[in-house]
Amino acid sequence: MTRIVCQQLAPVLGDLEANAELTIAAITAAIDAGADVVVLPELATSGYMFDSMEEAAAVAIEPDHAVLAGWARVAARGGAVVIGGFAERGEDDRVYNSAAVFDGDRLVGVYRKCHLWDQEKRWFTPGAEPPRVLDTRQGRIGVLVCYDLEFPEMTRTLALAGAELIAVPTNWPYVPRPTGERAPEVTIAMAAARSNRVFVACCDRAGTERGQAWNQGTAIIDIDGWVVASQPEIGSATGDVTLAAARDKSYTGLADAFADRRPELYGAVTSSGPPGIEESR
Amino acid sequence: MTRIVCQQLAPVLGDLEANAELTIAAITAAIDAGADVVVLPELATSGYMFDSMEEAAAVAIEPDHAVLAGWARVAARGGAVVIGGFAERGEDDRVYNSAAVFDGDRLVGVYRKCHLWDQEKRWFTPGAEPPRVLDTRQGRIGVLVCYDLEFPEMTRTLALAGAELIAVPTNWPYVPRPTGERAPEVTIAMAAARSNRVFVACCDRAGTERGQAWNQGTAIIDIDGWVVASQPEIGSATGDVTLAAARDKSYTGLADAFADRRPELYGAVTSSGPPGIEESR
Repeated sequence: MTRIVCQQLAPVLGDLEANAELTIAAITAAIDAGADVVVLPELATSGYMFDSMEEAAAVAIEPDHAVLAGWARVAARGGAVVIGGFAERGEDDRVYNSAAVFDGDRLVGVYRKCHLWDQEKRWFTPGAEPPRVLDTRQGRIGVLVCYDLEFPEMTRTLALAGAELIAVPTNWPYVPRPTGERAPEVTIAMAAARSNRVFVACCDRAGTERGQAWNQGTAIIDIDGWVVASQPEIGSATGDVTLAAARDKSYTGLADAFADRRPELYGAVTSSGPPGIEESR
Repeated sequence: MTRIVCQQLAPVLGDLEANAELTIAAITAAIDAGADVVVLPELATSGYMFDSMEEAAAVAIEPDHAVLAGWARVAARGGAVVIGGFAERGEDDRVYNSAAVFDGDRLVGVYRKCHLWDQEKRWFTPGAEPPRVLDTRQGRIGVLVCYDLEFPEMTRTLALAGAELIAVPTNWPYVPRPTGERAPEVTIAMAAARSNRVFVACCDRAGTERGQAWNQGTAIIDIDGWVVASQPEIGSATGDVTLAAARDKSYTGLADAFADRRPELYGAVTSSGPPGIEESR
């Protein structure tokens, strides 16, 4: 059994020190509550609503920065895996919207968001590498950041590569929705979980930043696509799951989510434009 | 404005004549109610719960069969597009789980289900061709059948090829779901609609056949992924939509569902097996 805890926090824009304290306290609380995997929001160390590239660069840190070393220390104490978003200063001096993965005190991965949402394109450089599956002590974990999740190719890529859990640090800007509906991104996560028979843990953020509210859509989703835990305001969501269940892609005796794929028919998926309209058979 | 009507029917297993009457009456009623596009369930002419290949073959028809000619006649009267499922006898004498598309009285497409669910593999031959986009008088329509929808590559393929509407004749066998949840396949359809900014119209079936109940999940979904019409029992669902809205893939000024794709990173999507686990960056 793996206990996943998502901490839906409200980081302070541009205040590394405050966010160090906030995130380390959140990881500590999660581990005290028995977490094996802790997921923090996107850009948890920096906040999101930058107005300029300078603002983003001012809080961009390298993966060996003291804030992340603090995450690692707490992760090690709990024998946990910790995944959280940060503004990364690359070796090329560019700024990336990244997520770090600590397996105990060991940094096992830094994923750079490949699909930048809207204004992010003005200050961040998109990642040049696809996501990968990390073989951690808690299981095989893939990481996406926010908008990445909305590209079904990304969740499929990770599931085909063996991910049991897709962890998604996110900042989902508030969008209106019909009464009774979930945040639309949660619906997308549910579909990805079910179609790939993989666990998905999305950690959204709370608070308001420069007038921007958030969907507060944190959700832990099982391989049938059902939400096992969510959090509609500031606070945590906790889900106890058996990650190894994601290794079995069968639905029934003769139906299997992966074995039933027809990759030879999916040619258009990897093209970037319309191959054109055909009229009849 | 395009009026889409899905007719959630209860066909009679193995009774072509009864189902001819049922489906033609349903198309007529839809057109009398102003339908521009009518969607019928999967295998609407034959029923679903076959016990043998012989049973399936006994009700398999060619696309020029009188039952489908009846559909065409009514479609022509309404200037409508009609999409519905039937058990098809191929020129190779095999039996396919197919959907016919009539643009008025013209048969413009026959799509053969590519992903066969469970026991269907025992009597049907899977389609060998990917789905295509049909340029009809009502707009650009792609067709999938039931389980096809659960492969995100399929909806993506059609959307990239220019589909404004994906019509999905389906028979969703009943699955238990948590209170308040939609049929899981509807969640998948909502995610596909939103991620691709395409309309999706799923027409499920009703009734009980050899003890099998159905999700009765008929749903018409807009490009934001919201359900605009559904039908929880026998009967119709009607949605009035502007199909051309699906041509605009932008979310905001700097975010666009298609322009933001990174096909160069989606290599694993078209492979059929896990490329293996990597450990760290």
